[in-house]
Amino acid sequence: MSATEDLAKDYYDYPDWNMENAVPTKVPVEVIPPCDPTADDRLYHICISAISLVVMLILAFLARRMKLANGRKGVPGLLSPVNFLDHTQHKGLAVAVFGVLFCKLFGLVIAPNPLPFITDQGNKQNWMIVSLFYYPVLYFPLLACGTLHNAVGYVLGSLLSWTHFGVLVWQKADCPKTPQIYKYYSLLTSLPQVCCLAFLSFQYPLLLFKGLKETEKTDANEDLTSSYYQHYVKNILKKKKPSKTSTSAEKPTLVERITDAVKSYIYTPEEVFRFPLKLAISGVVSFTAVYQMALVLVASVVPTLQIVRRGIDEDITFLLAGFNIVLSEDRAEVVQILVYYMWCVEVCYLSAMTLSCLVNLVMLMRSMVLHRSNLKGLYRGDIYNVYNCQRNIRPSRPALVCWMGFTSFQAAHICLGMLIQTMVFFLCLLIAVFLIILPIFHGQNLMLFKVLGNMWPFWLMLFLAAVVQHVTARFCFIKKSSGTRDLHNRGSLFLLTYLLFPVNVLIGVLLGAWRLVITALFNIVHLGRMDISLLNRNVEAFDPAYRCYAHYLKIEVSQSHPVMKAFCGMIMQCAGQDRDEKKARDAEEGIQLVNQEEKPQHKVSISKRARCQWQLLYTLVNNPSLVGSRKHFQRQSSEGFFNGTLNWDAKGGSKKEAEKETEEGNKEAEKETEAVAY
Amino acid sequence: MSATEDLAKDYYDYPDWNMENAVPTKVPVEVIPPCDPTADDRLYHICISAISLVVMLILAFLARRMKLANGRKGVPGLLSPVNFLDHTQHKGLAVAVFGVLFCKLFGLVIAPNPLPFITDQGNKQNWMIVSLFYYPVLYFPLLACGTLHNAVGYVLGSLLSWTHFGVLVWQKADCPKTPQIYKYYSLLTSLPQVCCLAFLSFQYPLLLFKGLKETEKTDANEDLTSSYYQHYVKNILKKKKPSKTSTSAEKPTLVERITDAVKSYIYTPEEVFRFPLKLAISGVVSFTAVYQMALVLVASVVPTLQIVRRGIDEDITFLLAGFNIVLSEDRAEVVQILVYYMWCVEVCYLSAMTLSCLVNLVMLMRSMVLHRSNLKGLYRGDIYNVYNCQRNIRPSRPALVCWMGFTSFQAAHICLGMLIQTMVFFLCLLIAVFLIILPIFHGQNLMLFKVLGNMWPFWLMLFLAAVVQHVTARFCFIKKSSGTRDLHNRGSLFLLTYLLFPVNVLIGVLLGAWRLVITALFNIVHLGRMDISLLNRNVEAFDPAYRCYAHYLKIEVSQSHPVMKAFCGMIMQCAGQDRDEKKARDAEEGIQLVNQEEKPQHKVSISKRARCQWQLLYTLVNNPSLVGSRKHFQRQSSEGFFNGTLNWDAKGGSKKEAEKETEEGNKEAEKETEAVAY
Repeated sequence: MSATEDLAKDYYDYPDWNMENAVPTKVPVEVIPPCDPTADDRLYHICISAISLVVMLILAFLARRMKLANGRKGVPGLLSPVNFLDHTQHKGLAVAVFGVLFCKLFGLVIAPNPLPFITDQGNKQNWMIVSLFYYPVLYFPLLACGTLHNAVGYVLGSLLSWTHFGVLVWQKADCPKTPQIYKYYSLLTSLPQVCCLAFLSFQYPLLLFKGLKETEKTDANEDLTSSYYQHYVKNILKKKKPSKTSTSAEKPTLVERITDAVKSYIYTPEEVFRFPLKLAISGVVSFTAVYQMALVLVASVVPTLQIVRRGIDEDITFLLAGFNIVLSEDRAEVVQILVYYMWCVEVCYLSAMTLSCLVNLVMLMRSMVLHRSNLKGLYRGDIYNVYNCQRNIRPSRPALVCWMGFTSFQAAHICLGMLIQTMVFFLCLLIAVFLIILPIFHGQNLMLFKVLGNMWPFWLMLFLAAVVQHVTARFCFIKKSSGTRDLHNRGSLFLLTYLLFPVNVLIGVLLGAWRLVITALFNIVHLGRMDISLLNRNVEAFDPAYRCYAHYLKIEVSQSHPVMKAFCGMIMQCAGQDRDEKKARDAEEGIQLVNQEEKPQHKVSISKRARCQWQLLYTLVNNPSLVGSRKHFQRQSSEGFFNGTLNWDAKGGSKKEAEKETEEGNKEAEKETEAVAY
Repeated sequence: MSATEDLAKDYYDYPDWNMENAVPTKVPVEVIPPCDPTADDRLYHICISAISLVVMLILAFLARRMKLANGRKGVPGLLSPVNFLDHTQHKGLAVAVFGVLFCKLFGLVIAPNPLPFITDQGNKQNWMIVSLFYYPVLYFPLLACGTLHNAVGYVLGSLLSWTHFGVLVWQKADCPKTPQIYKYYSLLTSLPQVCCLAFLSFQYPLLLFKGLKETEKTDANEDLTSSYYQHYVKNILKKKKPSKTSTSAEKPTLVERITDAVKSYIYTPEEVFRFPLKLAISGVVSFTAVYQMALVLVASVVPTLQIVRRGIDEDITFLLAGFNIVLSEDRAEVVQILVYYMWCVEVCYLSAMTLSCLVNLVMLMRSMVLHRSNLKGLYRGDIYNVYNCQRNIRPSRPALVCWMGFTSFQAAHICLGMLIQTMVFFLCLLIAVFLIILPIFHGQNLMLFKVLGNMWPFWLMLFLAAVVQHVTARFCFIKKSSGTRDLHNRGSLFLLTYLLFPVNVLIGVLLGAWRLVITALFNIVHLGRMDISLLNRNVEAFDPAYRCYAHYLKIEVSQSHPVMKAFCGMIMQCAGQDRDEKKARDAEEGIQLVNQEEKPQHKVSISKRARCQWQLLYTLVNNPSLVGSRKHFQRQSSEGFFNGTLNWDAKGGSKKEAEKETEEGNKEAEKETEAVAY
């Protein structure tokens, strides 16, 4: 039977199909034991949930006492600690909490048990769903502590954030290596979370310190009394400097155009513009998403590639020989070549991932530039330029739903975009390296070049045909005379068009391929951006992401127009002064003086009223998009008057219309103010 | 050694890797011998080239005689038989010749020898390049015969087209089957060519018949004296009926919108609008391209699939078993299943191809609707709506190159588009059939459904979260009061936004996937259309196909504006009448009468001049896009006055400006007329 065995062995030697025989190729992998940190996750979560509950109860008690003491509605509700429609609020707390929440969500996907205090592994999916709601609730007190603008709240917030921060750092220091995905993945993925918690731990004591130093402000209307809105209004009312572009209508040179294009990708902060809170959160969450996604992409593929590379030995040459691939006669050389190729694949993958990261960061910055210009445009009432059609800037059901989801959608799009970008770039780089770069370096396997080289008469012909058309178009068929260009030699033009018809079909095929490449590349690069549509301009709204963004902008502009807010703030101030004055009089001079003073008082209020009316008029004239959000506003008039006319104040006729509306402006604005300050 | 053999055989039985052993699976294929038609292609081409040369010489001689007889430049050059910038010319001849040429080009790719009278097979590529220029020249006389509008030309044309037609039909009748690709492919691919040649064979005698009946017209200016342009002008000067949309500004209902959308895909001819010749050629060539591409796609794949299907026998079960795929225990049943699967693949492929054809035909029709509306818009000066930016409608080098290649590019894009569409649709259909439809029918392999079914709590959660957001947005957070909508319950809105953040990220991933699918599908479906850009509205011009189309439109509008042509025609008529009158007087009344009559003559010309000036003024006012093509035209004024203002005639001020320009209008227009009529 030895002959049979020999034959069978000989046969087996080559196509070594089942890899179980190839065990020696596997290099012993570092085995990481499951690690239980000293601060047990289960115990920690039970404790921190209880502590959070206690904190919330204390805060609720405090809020109730403050409400009774002040006797008015202005105290903000504990259940809505974030005012997403606010431009002036200190954004740090909200941004940090959202960052923590997003990191936690990202960790959930690979976590062995999504809810730490449940050990039931059978029903993982259901516990995952529960955990999607558990974590927002868990981190809620971190937000709520800052709501009351109260020393007790800040102290509680400090303690809570210190606890979260301390335990997380302790756990990670205890168990830096975990068996999941890659040994340091768990550590690296929690870095943004650590940063956010560190920021919170630092921010709460800072707020406490500031709060002790300063006198207490009327906290509820902090947003409206902020000087930001007034600065904004002052800035837009300022006479603009005559810009250079209007005087010289020359076309920009190529260098200028490139510089402009580059500048439009770099975000430079402007003093008189602040991002809405929701956009700020989106920005930070998106940035975190880029980091987390890059980490996942690297950690899940590169270690595997490295193991495979280390595992390449001479056995693999048999496998290749089974496919009739002979890289070299010498087996050691084959191994060397294969290791080199694997290293190339690894480099390609990392380059693709890095490229995708860079693309997304650049796109993120470009998005911020575009967000700002879109918001400013809409504040100016420049609806057509932003949306490419006339729209009502008014809250609606779909708009509100899109507004609620915007931040999340943005993060999800970035993740998906990075995944697809990395795959596509990886493929392109592989093709480029193995078909172009390596063959050139080593001077072998020049298949692509051979094919292209054999076709050189064809390429030359296409090139010449294109050149002939351009040259004749420039010198024979276009005649410049007396400042205008016209066609010339029409007969020859028609003849050339007819004769080059078949050649142009072939050029057209190349053009079509180029179109395919450029549209695919553009769409893949911009996949993570919601602020532009990937579709043709007539069907823009069919792009779900762009549709969402457009709706989001609607709500943001209709509800937190800075000019409206400045105006509301002014009204609130007037009302506050009136009340203060009245209180003082009542107390000091008694009731008899009131009657005497009523006349001047009335005068003052009339002059104030007139001033307010004029301010309203002026702001409305300069910001027609605001008109839509006023009450008792007739739709027809807006469509008639504001249809794209921006320099509206130049016309005398329309002013009267505005004045009529101003009559109710004052009362109305007060109502609006209350609505804004809920 | 029998034991060894047995063992080896047993081993070989299963993974039957090299298919050479599987020869019995191949079914004997019908062998088609190469067929030499009685009308030998080589001899035919030598003869027809000689005949064409003779025809051209005769035509040249005739043209020279006519030129001498008429003594003026108006006789069209033989070397430019097609006036691509003409709307009124009888389009049939040019369209048919382009159709023949395109079919020939398509046949070239698979032809054994591209130039029939060259038997040198070694240098095929170079001969292919030569043939790209040979065929346009070969079919040139078919076009040129119609240029002279002369009985002799028509007779020669008839003879030539009959010869071409007769020989082609004879060859195809002789050899209906060829060995290339598919036995009837060669026959089917020449059908459009046969149709075009039949049309020419019918058209030339018809022209001859008409020419004998009618008196000879001044042939050179047939274009300008056509009544089409005058009808066009009359139509646009007509008072428009007050349309219903302006009176009732109500939003269209869903049914109306769907009806409108469907209507916008159906091309209904309008009496007062004719397509430019180049667009008409593009349309016919595109249609031919769809036919030819469909034929290639079917002929190159379906016969192979059928052969494979017929070749499936029990040997294939071993092959499958080697991959551990066991479809059934019974081998006959496995064969049956495999045959059924192959049939499914075939059906999928044919469906994908049909779908792609239908899509392209619908897109072709939609393109025609859009071409018409774009052209009409540009005639009206509605540049912004068409291009989405302000542009100069004026010939330039790139514009001219794009104009020359437009027809070819369009055809190439359709071919490429169909190829990619078929591939993508085929893949999608395969996935749908093998993962969804077949599993449902047979109740097995329900992998996809099992995965989805296991995840039902997850899907339910996402669905509920979306529903909750929509319902609360509708009923809790939006308050309608006094005709306007405003936000309500802001606190709860913010809380819900915060709590649903993690869930919304998951919804966002679905939304992103949907975005990917919809943009890819849109771009693939519209790949064959050059009249829309596949990119975002801000970077439209980077799409090479759309860029080409935009440039094409520029040339077309600037050079063959119907109003300009009508005006030129009118001037030519006036000039013609003047000359005729003068000739008559010279002959009959002698030179002495001329002096007496000079005064009234002068009056007449003044009144005529005034009329012309007013006509010019009126047309310019109503067609501001024409202004750009006038000479001595200052660029600044156009930018200042015509910037998007369409109802320009309502303003008194601008009329004066126009009047000033009218001073030179008359002389200039005559120059233009000559330029147009070359």
